[in-house]
Amino acid sequence: MTSTTPVDKKSPRRGVISDGPVRVGYLRDFDLVGLNNAAVDDEQATKNRLLVAAVKLFADRGYEASSMRELAAEVGVKAPAIYNHFDSKTQVLSTAVDYALSDFLANVLTGLEEFPKQEQLFELLRRHARYKTNDVALARAQDKLVDADFMRRVLPPASYDRYTAALAGYRAIVRDLVIAAAPEAQSDEAVNLPVLVSALIEMVDRVSSWFRPDGSLTGDEIADQCVVIARRIVEP
Amino acid sequence: MTSTTPVDKKSPRRGVISDGPVRVGYLRDFDLVGLNNAAVDDEQATKNRLLVAAVKLFADRGYEASSMRELAAEVGVKAPAIYNHFDSKTQVLSTAVDYALSDFLANVLTGLEEFPKQEQLFELLRRHARYKTNDVALARAQDKLVDADFMRRVLPPASYDRYTAALAGYRAIVRDLVIAAAPEAQSDEAVNLPVLVSALIEMVDRVSSWFRPDGSLTGDEIADQCVVIARRIVEP
Repeated sequence: MTSTTPVDKKSPRRGVISDGPVRVGYLRDFDLVGLNNAAVDDEQATKNRLLVAAVKLFADRGYEASSMRELAAEVGVKAPAIYNHFDSKTQVLSTAVDYALSDFLANVLTGLEEFPKQEQLFELLRRHARYKTNDVALARAQDKLVDADFMRRVLPPASYDRYTAALAGYRAIVRDLVIAAAPEAQSDEAVNLPVLVSALIEMVDRVSSWFRPDGSLTGDEIADQCVVIARRIVEP
Repeated sequence: MTSTTPVDKKSPRRGVISDGPVRVGYLRDFDLVGLNNAAVDDEQATKNRLLVAAVKLFADRGYEASSMRELAAEVGVKAPAIYNHFDSKTQVLSTAVDYALSDFLANVLTGLEEFPKQEQLFELLRRHARYKTNDVALARAQDKLVDADFMRRVLPPASYDRYTAALAGYRAIVRDLVIAAAPEAQSDEAVNLPVLVSALIEMVDRVSSWFRPDGSLTGDEIADQCVVIARRIVEP
């Protein structure tokens, strides 16, 4: 995205999560700071490039082994200039995590309430799988970085709390949508609801670990097939 | 395991993978070096402790940021003594990867051919899920370390080839067992077989990311529930 790209308010990638029924109660307090990062000027465009480069650098070389100087070099800015955007490496990381989560949630949740209630789960899972195939290198870097133990150790407490609250909110949304699609899942003695929810989320989330952009199936086809599998799991 | 623990040849954790039908053709050439590491003496016990500590240290601090000196300190041996066991940090990593893979494969595959052919898939998935709950901290460290891009960059080529061949062999076994359990999966137009295989493997492999040892379900219960879900996926 360049500085001249107009901000498309209808785009799910840079949109605003509606306050419709899907979000209410879980993520209303998650202010999706990342979505304010649409590159409206050069300054913001540079910041966005720094955040994407940071995720890849930290995942590739390790957070501890990476320096602000290296990050600046990755993006082609002078080392001191990076401090116009971020005070510290910790702030780069926490902003990058916020940005990645916001982008993901906006992508997966925006406009979901326009689908029939019992279809929302499957649409969400389709979007989640597709999201993980859009930019596989970035998705894998995020997967590697977004490790709960690492996050707890490195992020400032307030930032870590935001991160865990967002993940818990997402899980809660998936759980509610499972119940909307298959109310009997609540009292299924063979599979506890949290196990079912985890299985569904991991199936689509891990597509990034095995998807090959040059393979025989497109990201959309794989997402559709994940939905077929999800229906078998949820509507046995 | 201490130096006085007798080697139990019947134990699946330290056993030898049978050359039964499950293994033939895929992993016969994978010599499971890790299984020779049963701690028959103090020397080997120290080496094993170094390997487990290495996985946790590398995952926690990053491979590049970790030193042989730190690894020695973790296990309480003097820094020079570590070179009695390993020539280099690279050798520690490649041995640790071999060891982890061997231990996993022995655990999941040993004696599988004693189950009815169409049940072997579900028994394998049950064992895989259970394995990932045995030592969650170690499993998470392994998950973080065993990243394909990182492995390719850091491991010596021969070691990397062994690693990818073992993973491909495991996938091939799962694929064959899916076909044994549900022959129609080969020609299912709704879900391609590789997508089905990936979904099954990721479901059980990712249990380590959300399992809580102090939660309301035991590892065995979660493994059993994963099998219920797998049956819904494979036998719709």
